[in-house]
Amino acid sequence: MKKTVAKKKTPAADLALMGLAEAVRAVAQGKVTSQALTEACLARIADWQPRVNAFLQIEAEAALKAAKAVDRARKRGAALGRLAGVPLAHKDMFYRAGKQSSCGSAIRRHWKATETATALQRLDAEGALDLGRLNMAEFAFNPTGHNVHYGHARNPWNTDRITGGSSSGSAAAVAARMVFGALGSDTGGSIRQPSHYCALVGMKPTWGRVSRANAMPLSYSLDTVGPMTRRVEDNALLMEILAGADPQDPTTSHEAVGQYVAAAKSGSVRGLKLAVPRRYFWDKLNKPSAECLEAALKTLSKLGVKIVEITPPDMEMITAAGMVMVSAETAALHAPWMRTRPHLYGDLARMRLENGLALSAVDYIDSQRWRGEAIAAFLKSMGDADAVFAPVADRPALGIKETDVADRPEAGKVVATLTRLNRPINYLGLPSLAVPAGFVRGQLPVGFQLIGRPFAEAMLYRFGGSYEAAQPIWQTAPT
Amino acid sequence: MKKTVAKKKTPAADLALMGLAEAVRAVAQGKVTSQALTEACLARIADWQPRVNAFLQIEAEAALKAAKAVDRARKRGAALGRLAGVPLAHKDMFYRAGKQSSCGSAIRRHWKATETATALQRLDAEGALDLGRLNMAEFAFNPTGHNVHYGHARNPWNTDRITGGSSSGSAAAVAARMVFGALGSDTGGSIRQPSHYCALVGMKPTWGRVSRANAMPLSYSLDTVGPMTRRVEDNALLMEILAGADPQDPTTSHEAVGQYVAAAKSGSVRGLKLAVPRRYFWDKLNKPSAECLEAALKTLSKLGVKIVEITPPDMEMITAAGMVMVSAETAALHAPWMRTRPHLYGDLARMRLENGLALSAVDYIDSQRWRGEAIAAFLKSMGDADAVFAPVADRPALGIKETDVADRPEAGKVVATLTRLNRPINYLGLPSLAVPAGFVRGQLPVGFQLIGRPFAEAMLYRFGGSYEAAQPIWQTAPT
Repeated sequence: MKKTVAKKKTPAADLALMGLAEAVRAVAQGKVTSQALTEACLARIADWQPRVNAFLQIEAEAALKAAKAVDRARKRGAALGRLAGVPLAHKDMFYRAGKQSSCGSAIRRHWKATETATALQRLDAEGALDLGRLNMAEFAFNPTGHNVHYGHARNPWNTDRITGGSSSGSAAAVAARMVFGALGSDTGGSIRQPSHYCALVGMKPTWGRVSRANAMPLSYSLDTVGPMTRRVEDNALLMEILAGADPQDPTTSHEAVGQYVAAAKSGSVRGLKLAVPRRYFWDKLNKPSAECLEAALKTLSKLGVKIVEITPPDMEMITAAGMVMVSAETAALHAPWMRTRPHLYGDLARMRLENGLALSAVDYIDSQRWRGEAIAAFLKSMGDADAVFAPVADRPALGIKETDVADRPEAGKVVATLTRLNRPINYLGLPSLAVPAGFVRGQLPVGFQLIGRPFAEAMLYRFGGSYEAAQPIWQTAPT
Repeated sequence: MKKTVAKKKTPAADLALMGLAEAVRAVAQGKVTSQALTEACLARIADWQPRVNAFLQIEAEAALKAAKAVDRARKRGAALGRLAGVPLAHKDMFYRAGKQSSCGSAIRRHWKATETATALQRLDAEGALDLGRLNMAEFAFNPTGHNVHYGHARNPWNTDRITGGSSSGSAAAVAARMVFGALGSDTGGSIRQPSHYCALVGMKPTWGRVSRANAMPLSYSLDTVGPMTRRVEDNALLMEILAGADPQDPTTSHEAVGQYVAAAKSGSVRGLKLAVPRRYFWDKLNKPSAECLEAALKTLSKLGVKIVEITPPDMEMITAAGMVMVSAETAALHAPWMRTRPHLYGDLARMRLENGLALSAVDYIDSQRWRGEAIAAFLKSMGDADAVFAPVADRPALGIKETDVADRPEAGKVVATLTRLNRPINYLGLPSLAVPAGFVRGQLPVGFQLIGRPFAEAMLYRFGGSYEAAQPIWQTAPT
């Protein structure tokens, strides 16, 4: 099921296996045309789309046209953007003026956006191509990748397994090398958790770091937008472009944007300190995952990182407060549709919305009031560590059948636990980078998350980049 | 019941009748000692406190000691603060480390603060004296000045009438010339409405303009802190000291503080434009008040102000959204006490809290989500006007008996309407300055409010100062 990419001059057929930053450089240096890159991606799509259902819509013609325009621009010596000619695709919740954006739902099946998401605008401005709209959980509600309206996304490493969600199509498309990177959104793990299941690098940035303007809202207080890629450097490159204040989104921060790419390539973590919070985070970890993460810690230790154990604050409480927040805000956003067309929601989505409608204003306000205290307690528990090292999920990807709530209502219990290691970080508003750690049982990816202080994304890239250099998981592609 | 203060050299007995800024100058120039000022205030307190019940605690000794220290400092030529030696007193919800702060409640009757409110710290730092703790509505819940735990505050202009609330003691103390100024708080009219009933100048600043650190919270999204004085210049002086960012209150704005005193004394409003929103604001205005306000508009017009009529957005909706917000946030703050000691609340307070407990999270979130749109609609309705001129309340002060909910539950209906012209401005977060317009029926004060754009307090002082120069209501004191 795996294939190791030999380090050699990439032949045409393997162009899609490159990293994003590598592909950008290849186009800029004239080693490869954008058209060739795009054709390589389309060949991968032809092969993989039937197997993993990552795309809701493929925009081959428009992308090829844009690719040729980049190639012509390069030939006449025009200045190229930092992503010129490289095919991406995005979770179908980033609006593009005049285009459909289903948000994975039946309700918005035919809805067209009138504005373009700031995140897309920033990628466009750097010359990135857009190969189409990617599958996602209905309204980003579920963490598995099931979608009763458009078909489930499937994990390229084992197509009987879930991709994770809600950024399911993003994970499948990037992992299967159909595109070089994709936008996801993370309200309770929706970037990190599919990244973990699919051996990807996924950044859930600090709340307020990346504009959410004209991206589908789920929970104002928790939503974040971030990139999913195969390599750390690639992720850092996209984040440098995405991050920063946006007049269209008053919740964005004016905090200076870090030197993420430089951090990812810095090559040294000697003397830095990583905190390991065993309580809560290791409680339900399965054995193969635990062994994989211990090996990762050993690798980091060999790179000169000091590993210290810490005791985090009550993460059950933090998770519960985050659940109240997301349930209430989501219910408020969906209340009008819940009144007029509840039958158009899938069962899981409707069930979750009903829970939110029953919450009291006092419950919700308490979840807001306690937030500052919880953040302070978590940061205090970090001591002088530079970041926190934790699992992303208790185990590798489960089966699509065993997590199908429509088939087996008792699966709801399992599904509810999938994001227990992610949700609290959204409540705390902190940045967290999912990094591929390795494979267990010979084929299923396992990742770890690096949790940072507010706006310390650069530090996370530094750790992630050094780990990747030592353990280049990305060189292995699903077959 | 009234007495006009002749413009002459102030004799000792009348020192307390001066304006605050005038008193500051008199001390600074050695024309009067701080001790004499303080004794004059104490003489007024001896006369008026039994009649209006403004103070919960009088701190005569400490104030006299502080006064003498100021006098000594002046004699030895030390630099004096901008409020040096002038007696103030404050609503009993501004915490002072080591001192009681009852918040007008039985629950906090014996509670002592461990920190000092930033607002008090700023006044202290400028050498202001603090003559004691002032009466207020229980936990700032009611707009009348009734207090079942500490006795009702009474209006100095007619002691059978309400002061308004919740800053009842502040209004009574400043109007009766017991102190030169006082802090109030305004969540739904609690500064402006008692200012209107007692012929005072009261500033409800832009949300985020004045620190609320270590002031009792009622509703995070609506609470504001501001000064109550007899003259516009006095109010501007206190605001210049109070306004500005505070690390202790992360909701404070970094917007530059205006030149409020200069604006109050600018002396000209020629060419400025005032918007008059008849709809909603004039709907229930009684005849004498309406006549008084038309006369005020005529005065402003004679000063060269252009008066234009505007149609505001749906103020009923805005008021309703504000009611959801305040009820929910207040209930969240009080829920722990509501569970453990509901019997210690007065009936009105408990009733209002119970309403808040019944609200849903979705109701509350909707009230937050709609706010930006409502603000934009109101500002748009202003056109290019420099401020909005509106009544503060539908009529002058009602009787204490006719508004006593404990005596007559049907009075609840009347009480609920008292703040209908104030609450929407809190929801909009805008600054609003209550200014005495005149007297109706020979003795009862009526004011108007000047509503400004965000952080445009200086513009409001400019209008207020010019009106006061033309109509020096402050020269009339209650007897």
